[in-house]
Amino acid sequence: MPKRVVILGAGYAGLVTALELRKNATPEDTEVILVNKHNYHQLVTQLHELGAGAKSDTSARIMIEPVIRNKYITLIKDHVESIDPKEKRVRLSQQELSYDYLVVALGSETEYFGIPGLKEHSFILKSINQARLLRTHIERCFAEYHYTRDESLLTFVVGGAGFSGIELVGEFADRMPVLCEENNIPLDKVKLFNVEAAPSILPGFDKELVERAEKSLTERGVKFLVGVPIVQVEPGKVHLKNGDVIATQTLVWTGGVRGNQIVIDAGFETEPRGRAKVNEYLQALGYEDVYIIGDSCFIINEETGRPYPPTAQIAGQMGTAVGKYLFADLRGGTKEPFKPQIMGSIASLGRKDAIAKIGKNYQATGRFAYIVKDMSKLRYLAKIGAVIKKA
Amino acid sequence: MPKRVVILGAGYAGLVTALELRKNATPEDTEVILVNKHNYHQLVTQLHELGAGAKSDTSARIMIEPVIRNKYITLIKDHVESIDPKEKRVRLSQQELSYDYLVVALGSETEYFGIPGLKEHSFILKSINQARLLRTHIERCFAEYHYTRDESLLTFVVGGAGFSGIELVGEFADRMPVLCEENNIPLDKVKLFNVEAAPSILPGFDKELVERAEKSLTERGVKFLVGVPIVQVEPGKVHLKNGDVIATQTLVWTGGVRGNQIVIDAGFETEPRGRAKVNEYLQALGYEDVYIIGDSCFIINEETGRPYPPTAQIAGQMGTAVGKYLFADLRGGTKEPFKPQIMGSIASLGRKDAIAKIGKNYQATGRFAYIVKDMSKLRYLAKIGAVIKKA
Repeated sequence: MPKRVVILGAGYAGLVTALELRKNATPEDTEVILVNKHNYHQLVTQLHELGAGAKSDTSARIMIEPVIRNKYITLIKDHVESIDPKEKRVRLSQQELSYDYLVVALGSETEYFGIPGLKEHSFILKSINQARLLRTHIERCFAEYHYTRDESLLTFVVGGAGFSGIELVGEFADRMPVLCEENNIPLDKVKLFNVEAAPSILPGFDKELVERAEKSLTERGVKFLVGVPIVQVEPGKVHLKNGDVIATQTLVWTGGVRGNQIVIDAGFETEPRGRAKVNEYLQALGYEDVYIIGDSCFIINEETGRPYPPTAQIAGQMGTAVGKYLFADLRGGTKEPFKPQIMGSIASLGRKDAIAKIGKNYQATGRFAYIVKDMSKLRYLAKIGAVIKKA
Repeated sequence: MPKRVVILGAGYAGLVTALELRKNATPEDTEVILVNKHNYHQLVTQLHELGAGAKSDTSARIMIEPVIRNKYITLIKDHVESIDPKEKRVRLSQQELSYDYLVVALGSETEYFGIPGLKEHSFILKSINQARLLRTHIERCFAEYHYTRDESLLTFVVGGAGFSGIELVGEFADRMPVLCEENNIPLDKVKLFNVEAAPSILPGFDKELVERAEKSLTERGVKFLVGVPIVQVEPGKVHLKNGDVIATQTLVWTGGVRGNQIVIDAGFETEPRGRAKVNEYLQALGYEDVYIIGDSCFIINEETGRPYPPTAQIAGQMGTAVGKYLFADLRGGTKEPFKPQIMGSIASLGRKDAIAKIGKNYQATGRFAYIVKDMSKLRYLAKIGAVIKKA
């Protein structure tokens, strides 16, 4: 009788887990069920390109079926409602599933820090559908400006200057001249703000790269408001702690992530931001049959004493590791504790520029760094066996 | 010393006037100044295609400069503010112009019949910019539906079932399946209404063609509410006289046209809907040096005793006539009274169907009629010498 492995979420972590497990486990050993709310895998690291309108929705959508075809992986397209780890059951909106082993890879949610009005009156960029809403909203703002001449329609605010915020504002900076030309509006009517509560943009990057990014973006019209928290949001208005009010119809919030509510509700041990605590094998504390990976968990970098940031890079590595751990669980065998290999981080700054930290000692900027970023996406697509279509 | 002819508006009537006049009048006779608020000529008969998103904005935009190149026509890109026919002067927003002869071809405006909220909460389709606003709004409605599941986002109401209303609702009917597929929304969530106060759709068409149009559109999901006036519009709600309320985020008003306010303010004699009264040579009553043509004027069909509807076909014929009249004014010569030649009328019903009345006795439907409509557009473009680009 094969053991049933249920994997919740077909993001970077979940999809790689399923594929890695199937490299070794046969259908006689194991039944693999992958649960995802869409029938496609989303390249969430590319959503800033979609949200700004630089690329089409299909460029970030990998259909799952061709990737898992002939691999004995069952895809269930459904929403996860709750997990009962004591009963070893998962409730979906259309059915219930029991499991022998569970992999929770449900990603993260947005943290709004209780800022009044922020959730209600901001866009976020965690799915293709949200990116499409942002893109169509911006195009409508440009079209509407012809009639009302309301300058708040051409004022765009990105909240948060971490990785996601910087990449988005970079895309915006490159997209605005195109939208202005299409709509016959002078570029100097557009205002582009990046608001960050922390004292600097891009925490974790070296000072030199941060300055390089700031210069590149400032030259293309981005105005940085750093060390200035957002304190309240109303329709059409963003209130800052320094008393300033920005009149805008478009606030995109990239300023916070927290764990998945389903993980918290299931009773797994979590840190204050709701990400699950896991052991060195990425198992939920107290549950050897449950792995929690990707943005849903948190692990500490022993060198710095601080948690690793939630990235696609680490999520994919966790997927590979858990694919192997599960095979050891099923067949017996030893497990190596998980240790992320940080190859580097690359933040794109629009269509032609990027900053990259490669390994511990190297850095790169400009067109070269941008190409490296594109290559890392292609490398990932090749790894999961996704056909590469031209966007 | 050449005489100065000022033409206000480079729509069908104004542009054809300038080109026709220049077939005969030399720069020594005549200075020709064409005033238009854009540097492009708009194919307003195609705007329903743009508004629904079936074709790109550029397909309805003919740049004026290449059309008038080497023809000694001066294009002034400016808004007309007022006309003083006694002083023979025109005030633009950036300058004033005096004239020897004036051609007023400023088109029509939308008639809202004093229905409360209609102007404030509806879209209209009289320019490319307005079509773009409608298109981007609809795309945003689909994107937003993913989050709110608010059915009013997928409910579309076209007010008016005349020519423009029917053509638009036909485009909508063909566009909705595409938008549904792109957004992964079942087509049966979309509601498409055409609301008309008069007892029938398409006044002026034969009963047989009207029934054919109704059938074609009903089969593609259009719901007709005929004989039901709109009595009030609020944000998100259209109130009908029968007490029904349609919850919608998208009302497009095509139900009324009236003359141009600038013509009224200049003191020209007008009929109650503000269209200028003109003599048999299309001259403003009491002003032999002013021609008022296109949708800005009205002329009576002596056979029926009713005014001709404002159409591109008649506007173009008026342009040709006035080009000749002006040459007669400048050089001397006889003028023939203006008499429109109604070749027929064709209403498209989406991307593949149309109904056509050709001459007095012929009618056509289906794909053939649609092709005739497309040909009449190409014929017009060839006539004005516009380069035909693939849309």
